[in-house]
Amino acid sequence: MGTVVALGGQFGGAKLTDGLYRLRKKDLTVIVNTGDDFEHVGLAFSPDLDTMIYALAGLENPIAGWEPRGETYKLFEMLKMAGGPDRIPLGDQSLALPILRSEGLAAGRTLSEITRSFCQHLGIEATVVPMSDERVRTQILTREGAVSFQDYFSELACEPVVTGFHYANAAQAPVPDAIVNALRAPDLEAVVIGPCNPYHTVQPILEIGGMKELLRKQGAPVIAVSPIVGGGALQGSAAKMMQELGHAPLPRSVAMGYYKLIDGFIIDQVDAEQAEGLRASGIEVLVAPTVMRSPNDRVDLAVQVIKFAKRIAEIKAQAA
Amino acid sequence: MGTVVALGGQFGGAKLTDGLYRLRKKDLTVIVNTGDDFEHVGLAFSPDLDTMIYALAGLENPIAGWEPRGETYKLFEMLKMAGGPDRIPLGDQSLALPILRSEGLAAGRTLSEITRSFCQHLGIEATVVPMSDERVRTQILTREGAVSFQDYFSELACEPVVTGFHYANAAQAPVPDAIVNALRAPDLEAVVIGPCNPYHTVQPILEIGGMKELLRKQGAPVIAVSPIVGGGALQGSAAKMMQELGHAPLPRSVAMGYYKLIDGFIIDQVDAEQAEGLRASGIEVLVAPTVMRSPNDRVDLAVQVIKFAKRIAEIKAQAA
Repeated sequence: MGTVVALGGQFGGAKLTDGLYRLRKKDLTVIVNTGDDFEHVGLAFSPDLDTMIYALAGLENPIAGWEPRGETYKLFEMLKMAGGPDRIPLGDQSLALPILRSEGLAAGRTLSEITRSFCQHLGIEATVVPMSDERVRTQILTREGAVSFQDYFSELACEPVVTGFHYANAAQAPVPDAIVNALRAPDLEAVVIGPCNPYHTVQPILEIGGMKELLRKQGAPVIAVSPIVGGGALQGSAAKMMQELGHAPLPRSVAMGYYKLIDGFIIDQVDAEQAEGLRASGIEVLVAPTVMRSPNDRVDLAVQVIKFAKRIAEIKAQAA
Repeated sequence: MGTVVALGGQFGGAKLTDGLYRLRKKDLTVIVNTGDDFEHVGLAFSPDLDTMIYALAGLENPIAGWEPRGETYKLFEMLKMAGGPDRIPLGDQSLALPILRSEGLAAGRTLSEITRSFCQHLGIEATVVPMSDERVRTQILTREGAVSFQDYFSELACEPVVTGFHYANAAQAPVPDAIVNALRAPDLEAVVIGPCNPYHTVQPILEIGGMKELLRKQGAPVIAVSPIVGGGALQGSAAKMMQELGHAPLPRSVAMGYYKLIDGFIIDQVDAEQAEGLRASGIEVLVAPTVMRSPNDRVDLAVQVIKFAKRIAEIKAQAA
């Protein structure tokens, strides 16, 4: 049994990664988006890293996976009373990792080191790595100007029309060693792009200096799971962004965005009739239940992803 | 009705100050010890300031006044799980002010400005001021070495034998303008030293460069309330420290420590028989119920303090 690399963020990405983790434990490396990281009340928030950590540690709220189960807001109530910001609700448990992260960064530790320490303490055997230890910030370009995802989402309620994205500092930011090693592992079996926003969750990872080359040079199949199901995103604003950027909110638009990078694409069974058209574009397609409602759903989809990767590897081997 | 200045810290000091605040509202200025401030998990903790703010805002736990009522520890549990320190329990609500304080200090705001903002938002009309905007740290000198009060209290359980105190940087730290103005106010009626630890809560304030001179030059009576009742401290380690420093754990020892600074001293009724001896030393003494169990007790003691100050002012006026 080989190793697997997953990449992405958000709750969708975290759920599939959790499924892969149940199958592969320490043989999984996870590359997490940090382009949506932000500073707030003096603390360093890494929403995609924390969502991933909660899921892999089994601590996440099964409905709102970006926060731990049983979240409370006592600190936030006092913060507001004392004159702190009232936007961006800050859960009590959700503040623990940002506090320790801020302390670690101030002490000169890298985000990779801090993340590794979190995983060790929370019993996560997989290697969870930020896409870079350098600061990279995704800017959503809108008709009203450039904003962070955090502001776009919480202050602007996803309303401004999106015209593009800018991944500030991504090209200059180096890929952490743990990612280089995972993508060069001789027993790498699959690279999995999670069902998450292609623009601000997956693309920033691909924009890190040298990341695309690493992905293209490695020999294992790259599989993406569509975040678009039945014409919309399950969570988040991907479908709205796609339409504003002039793309139909269809799995096909996502697949075309990953073109030349992926070997296989997984679409949900509700979109089964789109499989033929995608195959005609030269992409291997698997139709599967991609909506993960239960922990079992996560493992089931992960099993399908791995099987699909194996099949593609065989096809590639036969063609070679 | 004139103005009042209170000084001190801890829950005892906060309770008496709260009583004075109910009587004088905006005509009260509070000088708070910051010698026991400390940094922890990257945040700036000011325990005496926060205790004072909770009390004046009516938010404090009536039993454990250093934290807000209904405190919970969800963040702390997550912090420990993720590898954070397990000593010094950090309450959810109790972290709000340190987070905002750290953010403010990092942005270049002074501790006075930050404290003023807290008070404005929490509806506190009194002027609450840290003893200095410069960093001053009290070191408790023990047979095992010099430690902060935080470490002495929480890590060492108050066990090491105390041999002295060092108020690092106090002499060089300037008195904030708000304190200078309050102590020079022509209508100043009383300066009140709260019933709190004389060594690490009151003395650091007196050691700030120029503070003693300001106190001596102003004309209003200086009244101290004994933190020692019936041979012990109501809360904290004052009595133990006194014995180790070679002083009897009696109100007299506290009064002698403030000698030449105070005009009047208030002792509890259980220590009534010590009044004569103190008076023989040339100190005006009031015997009163000093144990504040209820909000009314706080106001009752505050009324006694003000009346006592008035009587002393009259005596001084007659003598002049």
